[in-house]
Amino acid sequence: MNEITSVQNNLVKETVKLHQKKYREDLILLEGLKAVEGAILSNLKIKYIISDDKKTAAKYKNYDIYLASEAVMKKISTTESPSNIIAVTKKPKYSINDFFKFKKIALLDNIKDAGNLGTIIRACCAFNIEGILLYGDTVDEFSPKVIRSAAGNIFKIPILKTTTGELEQFKKTHRFIATVVNSNKTIEEYKKIDSKIIVMFGSEANGLCKELLNLSDEKLTVKMSNDVESLNLAVCTGIVLYVLQ
Amino acid sequence: MNEITSVQNNLVKETVKLHQKKYREDLILLEGLKAVEGAILSNLKIKYIISDDKKTAAKYKNYDIYLASEAVMKKISTTESPSNIIAVTKKPKYSINDFFKFKKIALLDNIKDAGNLGTIIRACCAFNIEGILLYGDTVDEFSPKVIRSAAGNIFKIPILKTTTGELEQFKKTHRFIATVVNSNKTIEEYKKIDSKIIVMFGSEANGLCKELLNLSDEKLTVKMSNDVESLNLAVCTGIVLYVLQ
Repeated sequence: MNEITSVQNNLVKETVKLHQKKYREDLILLEGLKAVEGAILSNLKIKYIISDDKKTAAKYKNYDIYLASEAVMKKISTTESPSNIIAVTKKPKYSINDFFKFKKIALLDNIKDAGNLGTIIRACCAFNIEGILLYGDTVDEFSPKVIRSAAGNIFKIPILKTTTGELEQFKKTHRFIATVVNSNKTIEEYKKIDSKIIVMFGSEANGLCKELLNLSDEKLTVKMSNDVESLNLAVCTGIVLYVLQ
Repeated sequence: MNEITSVQNNLVKETVKLHQKKYREDLILLEGLKAVEGAILSNLKIKYIISDDKKTAAKYKNYDIYLASEAVMKKISTTESPSNIIAVTKKPKYSINDFFKFKKIALLDNIKDAGNLGTIIRACCAFNIEGILLYGDTVDEFSPKVIRSAAGNIFKIPILKTTTGELEQFKKTHRFIATVVNSNKTIEEYKKIDSKIIVMFGSEANGLCKELLNLSDEKLTVKMSNDVESLNLAVCTGIVLYVLQ
């Protein structure tokens, strides 16, 4: 088995680069067993795996595996307490054409919080959403924090950045549902209608942008106490997707 | 108007102490307009307010208000980008006797993540929960991060740490509902039953502890894809409380 003991090792340098979005054009960094197992189950191309635990390393002996020191793990990790396993894999690539056949799509507008995005990805998988579209200035879906909070679900669902132009092509096939805070129509009233849908969620601070509101066929609200201004976005998304599942 | 320009000022030192739980026996620190306004609306006793913005300071001239430098705000703040307003208030105090009359109570077991707790407090307010009980080794409900993620809702609902002994007294009046991942009974099947309830949520990693499972009258599950191990706790709580509202 290959060993890495120096933080000056070239592979260490290559791996650390992937902490930054600009280097994640082709490869991504996965930390922890859940993410690595998720990638393997999804038949993602594994470039190499690094672990500081002999047993773990032995388990992945059919891959390009490296046994590393604790110092190396600390160096290549993005967290305070590094995982025992880190993998570098090819980034999954999707096309907008993959999405036309999906019955239920979630669209996220301008999501800045990586933890929120990961949590939403997980909820989408739980409630049978088939694809996620990212619109506007949204955090990178393969940032380490998104992957971490998606808890092993990041590769179970196609995720793609999109534009207004692309979305307009869905008008023939899908109904656009905007989730808003002030509609008279609740998600409960909609749930039994059967058609292909794109459910759109905006940020807590700003809601959905004008372009997306213009695309919408329905505006729906989660019924709640007047006393509360808004729900956390991941909570709101979870409730809507649960009801529409 | 009083001014504070030195970070060595005694009031600054007193305020900074409140970053630590051990000093929050009687007083708590509130950062940002939402939290401060929430405290005022809830008639909490305001000890003093500090702001680096003259207009903001003028608005609160009926309180013990201090105009401070940016350096002071940075010192007393717990965040990288300090708010323009910080207040120190008396901690709200509740007794378990306040809770017996509540129709719907949420109980949180062993919640370690401050952001999650704040988000859950907000969802409780949105879906008409009347009180929140904290059980086991749960994060301090008045930690700055909890207050921040509760987004102004922290004082709208009584929150109290509790014990098995206290909970047993509720057996006569309330039904205990455990949310678990593997029950045959879903929350949908339960939602129409009308009785006083305590809905219990455990941590993602460990679920509910044995003592609480033993107390439960019902075990309910959020129906979701088998593919997904668990939901984020705040998302799960949001869905359950939405359905049971």
